[in-house]
Amino acid sequence: MEETGRIENFRRAAGLSDKPHQGFVFNDSDVYKWLEAAHTASQADVLTPELDSKLKRLTQTILSAQQPDGYLNTAFMFDEAPHRWQNIRDKHELYCAGHFIEAALASTNGALLSAAQHLADIICATFGDAPDQINAVPGHPEIELALIKLYRATGDRKYLDQAEYFINARGRGLIGAQTYHLDHAPFRELDRLTGHAVRALYLCAAAADLYAETGEPALLETLTRLWERAYTRQVYVTGGLGARHSGESFGQDYELPNAAAYSETCAAVAAICWNWRMLLLTGESRYADTLETTLYNAALAGISLDGDKYFYTNPLANEGGGTSSAHRRAHYFNCACCPPNIARLLAALPQYFITASEKTLSLHLYAAGEIHLPDFRAAIETGYPWEGQVRLTIHTAGAYTLRLRLPGWTRGDAQLFVNGDPREPGMGYAKLSEEWADGDQVDLHFPMPPRFIQAHPSVSENIGRAALARGPLVYCVEQTDPHPERLLVDTSAPVREVPANGMIHLALQAAVTPAGEAWGDELYQPAPPAEPVEASVTAIPYYAWANADPAPMRVWLKTQ
Amino acid sequence: MEETGRIENFRRAAGLSDKPHQGFVFNDSDVYKWLEAAHTASQADVLTPELDSKLKRLTQTILSAQQPDGYLNTAFMFDEAPHRWQNIRDKHELYCAGHFIEAALASTNGALLSAAQHLADIICATFGDAPDQINAVPGHPEIELALIKLYRATGDRKYLDQAEYFINARGRGLIGAQTYHLDHAPFRELDRLTGHAVRALYLCAAAADLYAETGEPALLETLTRLWERAYTRQVYVTGGLGARHSGESFGQDYELPNAAAYSETCAAVAAICWNWRMLLLTGESRYADTLETTLYNAALAGISLDGDKYFYTNPLANEGGGTSSAHRRAHYFNCACCPPNIARLLAALPQYFITASEKTLSLHLYAAGEIHLPDFRAAIETGYPWEGQVRLTIHTAGAYTLRLRLPGWTRGDAQLFVNGDPREPGMGYAKLSEEWADGDQVDLHFPMPPRFIQAHPSVSENIGRAALARGPLVYCVEQTDPHPERLLVDTSAPVREVPANGMIHLALQAAVTPAGEAWGDELYQPAPPAEPVEASVTAIPYYAWANADPAPMRVWLKTQ
Repeated sequence: MEETGRIENFRRAAGLSDKPHQGFVFNDSDVYKWLEAAHTASQADVLTPELDSKLKRLTQTILSAQQPDGYLNTAFMFDEAPHRWQNIRDKHELYCAGHFIEAALASTNGALLSAAQHLADIICATFGDAPDQINAVPGHPEIELALIKLYRATGDRKYLDQAEYFINARGRGLIGAQTYHLDHAPFRELDRLTGHAVRALYLCAAAADLYAETGEPALLETLTRLWERAYTRQVYVTGGLGARHSGESFGQDYELPNAAAYSETCAAVAAICWNWRMLLLTGESRYADTLETTLYNAALAGISLDGDKYFYTNPLANEGGGTSSAHRRAHYFNCACCPPNIARLLAALPQYFITASEKTLSLHLYAAGEIHLPDFRAAIETGYPWEGQVRLTIHTAGAYTLRLRLPGWTRGDAQLFVNGDPREPGMGYAKLSEEWADGDQVDLHFPMPPRFIQAHPSVSENIGRAALARGPLVYCVEQTDPHPERLLVDTSAPVREVPANGMIHLALQAAVTPAGEAWGDELYQPAPPAEPVEASVTAIPYYAWANADPAPMRVWLKTQ
Repeated sequence: MEETGRIENFRRAAGLSDKPHQGFVFNDSDVYKWLEAAHTASQADVLTPELDSKLKRLTQTILSAQQPDGYLNTAFMFDEAPHRWQNIRDKHELYCAGHFIEAALASTNGALLSAAQHLADIICATFGDAPDQINAVPGHPEIELALIKLYRATGDRKYLDQAEYFINARGRGLIGAQTYHLDHAPFRELDRLTGHAVRALYLCAAAADLYAETGEPALLETLTRLWERAYTRQVYVTGGLGARHSGESFGQDYELPNAAAYSETCAAVAAICWNWRMLLLTGESRYADTLETTLYNAALAGISLDGDKYFYTNPLANEGGGTSSAHRRAHYFNCACCPPNIARLLAALPQYFITASEKTLSLHLYAAGEIHLPDFRAAIETGYPWEGQVRLTIHTAGAYTLRLRLPGWTRGDAQLFVNGDPREPGMGYAKLSEEWADGDQVDLHFPMPPRFIQAHPSVSENIGRAALARGPLVYCVEQTDPHPERLLVDTSAPVREVPANGMIHLALQAAVTPAGEAWGDELYQPAPPAEPVEASVTAIPYYAWANADPAPMRVWLKTQ
């Protein structure tokens, strides 16, 4: 962000640089997302001293960039100041403001929180349907999420009201009545998600927050309707959303091309935000299932194994070079929304695993660790997601309710034991309301044999194909020879688990269609007769693809 | 053309109607193409009295529409007259003029020929690089073909010179230097076809005509280079050209998507024109092979079996409905270039079968019929393209050379007999220079077992797939259950020939991948284990698809 002028833009706004503004009008948001990630990591005390010092300096620079009236956006300063708030559909000022407020709320810095409130105050004063206000809707939702978070932090109701205003003003044609912006109909009348996927998903997350505060039934009904449509018609097996490159948008029902998939990394992050809120609102495990699928696949593929390269789009098939260019992760992008969004997600990851309320603990995702609550302590041992055993050892005596998620991919095969005694786990969340003794052990066993998955026959590209998964992870085949398109997988044959590189790879047998003779210049030639050639093939987790030399990759494999 | 105002436009230009001009500026060309087809058919004495009467009336209307100075284009009359010749890149005036001249040359109407010459004369006077001329290039080639044809009919060299001017002025940036118009480089420097496929192919056909008249080596070198690139990198197995919907254009090498194929019907017609000229120039059978493939597949698919519905684009895969709309032939199009181009092609079809020069007869394509030349008579008996036997019975005595094409798809398996005695046929064209006696019989046998074809591995969509062909015909599978994508074809198993509906269908055995349980709302579910299910499948000629109820169609089938 230094190299691309994003931070220099703040120095300029603070009067510390006379370089012109650099880059897109929304570049501030990338800095704020990093700020949020770093403050979150700082809270967890995991920052290196060097990063901590960078964080402090950057925080100070941003505070200095804020204008006396509370305005903060480096693209609309000096000569551009007259254009402030003139086009919030396209210019992303409120989007940037939202990320600033979220960053401030992730910190313990009082000055930052005051600055965020100052900015929020002028937004509340500026936008609305009063005669002296601008009656408009931001093209890219985000401010709504930030304002409700700010309301929760401060208790000041005007922030909630302002978020509700932005949500309710949408769909009245204030920004062109286009499906791209979900402005073609009021939110509560939508029957499917359309347009720009990230924008739509941020809006849904915000609407879920609004419902959490207002309890308005129409909001939850709408959210449920939109979720059910999206997750039965519009989602990739990886959890990715937004099929089309054109408009970074949702496609038609079942329009889920593999090589041409957009499946933006930011849309995966946004979907996790939305599903998390739906889970908190309803307690329904289907939202946790979707969150987990998205996290371990569509989102995690967005970052390289070495942690410093990113995917903007996440196709499910790629040629790995040859006549088309290989899809590879980049260190950065001109439009760099995805890298710091992955940083925010990973910095905040612990918050998604466990929630607690009065004498009740819910485990949503599984990882080894310790639970420290004022009235409850426990340890979790597990090799999840590579292994399906989870042991919870309780270190507190007394009555406590445990809600333990049974992953949807177990399809009823999960097992539950308390001190070795089998219990009926049920479906969704297993509920254990007991008097616990120190040392009690709860064991979960989620059998995770490799499994083949088939897509609805309306997804025409995947007819006669299967995807391979194990536990929450979707796999892919990435290899040059034979090309994955030449493989015919026997879905009834055993698949072997092979520990490798800290993962579990899957070894499978496949028939191989003939490759033909060495090709000269002819474009078409007689096909060789079929011969029963078999190959041993290794599938790797989808999130790990494109970390070695470029090679053709497929999630969906032809079946015998 | 009456319903869409195309003919009314001519009445208006002739002062017989006061309706405004209707439709695109290039709509005249559709009328001229029909005129050419009808005059050609009239020469062959195959018009019904009703059509003949329509043809006479239409010819007269068009003659009345021509302006006193020779100008003829109904879109640039009255208020629009000042815009004549102002934008020949985009406004198609020379394209329309070319089709008018070609139509006139197809007739025996002296007034029509004079009118065409009058129009050609003002074009020659108007365009060129003299100071008082417009130095420009038509965006859509066609006038070049017409002018060279007019030169051949009249012997007036200025028409040839004018065509050469238009070909040579291209690629100097006069119309934007874009690859779309093949204006990015001089014709003789091109190394591949780019941009709008029909335009590029008309230009190549015209350049071939120019070479025929001038013998300039650089022209033939360029044409050969472009042809070899196109036919080893850019052509569909059907002979279709122009892969991309965007710009109706050629794609990159090996960019040959099946469902998304453009493969415009007009591009197939244009490719036949080009290949025919290359064949006449060189006598090389590869051009006749390509012409035949294109004729029986990419072009013929452009018209329905009942002869009154047309495809504009000719994909090699289609879902036949379901979540996407079925690709079906239409009675007409707003942009209606393809229907009358098919009419021109089919009306002129006989001319492609046989050519003759001094004491030499060349048979390029095969059909039953009779040959009547001043010095040679013969009869041809054959069921081609359904059967590979061709018998030529000679009814003239004396020395004569026969050149008989051995289709490339026979790959050396063709057999030749003279009065029952086997002869070595060679490759390309079998040559028989003999003293013939009345009643001599020449038999050709082209074994046409069904054959599977494989695509170059760089065509990524076709990896692990094969197409089925027999003789010159490419086949496809068009059926609902099982979906063609579920079929796994054994390319070593026998394929049975089944006469049906005046065609030969092909019956093949295929394994069928499991279909899964009846689907509810779930988008993904466990794949059923593979089971060795077999199905009998019928393949039909590609040209005949989309003539029954909509169903999924594939040319390229997965192989075992």
